[in-house]
Amino acid sequence: MSSETARVEAFSDGVFAIAITLLILNVQVPPPSAGHLLAALARQWPTYVAFLISFAFIGIMWVNHHRLFNHIRRCDNMLMFLNLLLLLGITVVPFPTALLAAHYSTPGRTVAAAVFNGTYVFLAISFNVLWFHVVKRGLLDPETQELDWQSFTRCLCAPLRTAGRCGVQRNSCIS
Amino acid sequence: MSSETARVEAFSDGVFAIAITLLILNVQVPPPSAGHLLAALARQWPTYVAFLISFAFIGIMWVNHHRLFNHIRRCDNMLMFLNLLLLLGITVVPFPTALLAAHYSTPGRTVAAAVFNGTYVFLAISFNVLWFHVVKRGLLDPETQELDWQSFTRCLCAPLRTAGRCGVQRNSCIS
Amino acid sequence: MSSETARVEAFSDGVFAIAITLLILNVQVPPPSAGHLLAALARQWPTYVAFLISFAFIGIMWVNHHRLFNHIRRCDNMLMFLNLLLLLGITVVPFPTALLAAHYSTPGRTVAAAVFNGTYVFLAISFNVLWFHVVKRGLLDPETQELDWQSFTRCLCAPLRTAGRCGVQRNSCIS
Amino acid sequence: MSSETARVEAFSDGVFAIAITLLILNVQVPPPSAGHLLAALARQWPTYVAFLISFAFIGIMWVNHHRLFNHIRRCDNMLMFLNLLLLLGITVVPFPTALLAAHYSTPGRTVAAAVFNGTYVFLAISFNVLWFHVVKRGLLDPETQELDWQSFTRCLCAPLRTAGRCGVQRNSCIS
Repeated sequence: MSSETARVEAFSDGVFAIAITLLILNVQVPPPSAGHLLAALARQWPTYVAFLISFAFIGIMWVNHHRLFNHIRRCDNMLMFLNLLLLLGITVVPFPTALLAAHYSTPGRTVAAAVFNGTYVFLAISFNVLWFHVVKRGLLDPETQELDWQSFTRCLCAPLRTAGRCGVQRNSCIS
Repeated sequence: MSSETARVEAFSDGVFAIAITLLILNVQVPPPSAGHLLAALARQWPTYVAFLISFAFIGIMWVNHHRLFNHIRRCDNMLMFLNLLLLLGITVVPFPTALLAAHYSTPGRTVAAAVFNGTYVFLAISFNVLWFHVVKRGLLDPETQELDWQSFTRCLCAPLRTAGRCGVQRNSCIS
Repeated sequence: MSSETARVEAFSDGVFAIAITLLILNVQVPPPSAGHLLAALARQWPTYVAFLISFAFIGIMWVNHHRLFNHIRRCDNMLMFLNLLLLLGITVVPFPTALLAAHYSTPGRTVAAAVFNGTYVFLAISFNVLWFHVVKRGLLDPETQELDWQSFTRCLCAPLRTAGRCGVQRNSCIS
Repeated sequence: MSSETARVEAFSDGVFAIAITLLILNVQVPPPSAGHLLAALARQWPTYVAFLISFAFIGIMWVNHHRLFNHIRRCDNMLMFLNLLLLLGITVVPFPTALLAAHYSTPGRTVAAAVFNGTYVFLAISFNVLWFHVVKRGLLDPETQELDWQSFTRCLCAPLRTAGRCGVQRNSCIS
């Protein structure tokens, strides 16, 4: 970790950590009037699924971000801007998660699922734009640059591609 | 603290710090219509107890996490995954805390207490799985490895075991 | 980054990261009773605009804060106080954002826009006071002091001046 | 900052940063039905005063915590426990702030003010207990120990004493 990128990483870590922790605020406590508690808890299963998917996605994005910044030696203005764009996507995640959880059993579920998947497609695109910028501008440290970075890219993109594909499938299942 | 684990610790610290601070959002302000304020505040004592137990538990988990990572020298993918699993448990804590506080004086209290204790059992299990992985893969620094790590393990597990046992007892008291 | 300012930066980064992430809590999920979900989502477009403006502003402020503290070598009490004043402005941002989003289509929109812009004027003033204090007390590292700091100041102020001007224009458009 | 206390400081900074940023969630946006927005905003002035007092108090506590840990060289279990006790007080702050803001113009204001002041008295006591533990166990670095630490203590306690006194006065004014 170079000192030039240390504070960018600290800020990003903060945003990732807060976004991943705020997700739980979307899981509502059933009011005492909701009948038997176990049944009430079971009825809101889409909330838990949405929470777990979002947690897993932010977690994976953090691991990838961490790995990428391990290899970045220099920091330019464009990198800071693209990183903010990625963080914009990360901070947005609690909203589509709440949307999907609230509208899973209503006619709005197709729209909710589209917004949910759209967020992840946006995240995947920002991450790849960030990555291509880093490679193109030679911001990586020399050792990494000598690696076959294409294979590294492929390995980074794979989970995102899978997520995108799942999104599309889930979308079609629902509609 | 090795530089390899520094960012994992920074991210974990962020999640611990946010989860422990979000707990207070579960303590509701009684509305002005709730009658005498002191009585209204006193009536919601289960909220304060749940808040304090969760605060203490996250605090203890943080101290243990801090101690464990002080001895970790290397970081592998499995460690990052297991750490995320532990953090999943930590971010979930505000939910069972709110659940127990809201349902303590309703028929749903057995279910609420079971969810509350289940979260801590999940946390205790993840922490131990993380710890056994670290020992088995030799990710500790050499000095620590020479220690009798079994006694160290015992000392780490003790509070969790106690918590688990309390949970079961509390559960039986309530039902 | 000198070790004397490291913890001030860590604390500031935390506040920036949390304020930028809390903004999403202002984006409400339309209740299932709100009719067609797509229409309900489209109706709350002022919320998204307010969210994006606030995200961009906090992001820009963070980049500027980061750049400024890169050049600060020493830390005095007044710097810590002025930094807290700036952070006060940053933590306040989610409130005018929610206010503008909630009152954009009501008669209160002039007041809401004035509060929204007032926050950014306050932030711009605090940032400049902080900057002038740093220059006047010679808290910068020697290399930077030799630079033509006036041009640096100009470059830092420009985005804030633009934001202020936009604010005034938006204000007049709305009224 | 010794490496032994670095992570304690990082965690504490996180808690301080989050608690200070969550305060704004207590400032409610008046609903569109509340009549003229400016009047509605003006009516909730106790909310702003409570927000500013709490912000100032957490800010001052952070500055003092920062200064104290600058001089701590070693870290023992008791220090970690006392630090958690102080952080407990800090995370609680948003609750009495919301309580005072909500009940300022109701008969419950004496109780609300007592809870508000009680929190700050608790914080002042925890901070002083932490400080005396550090001095008694010789956890400070040698240079500081040679200072007349009594004067340092006096200087640290002064703002807390003042705050306590203000609290008592405010209390008597209100009742």
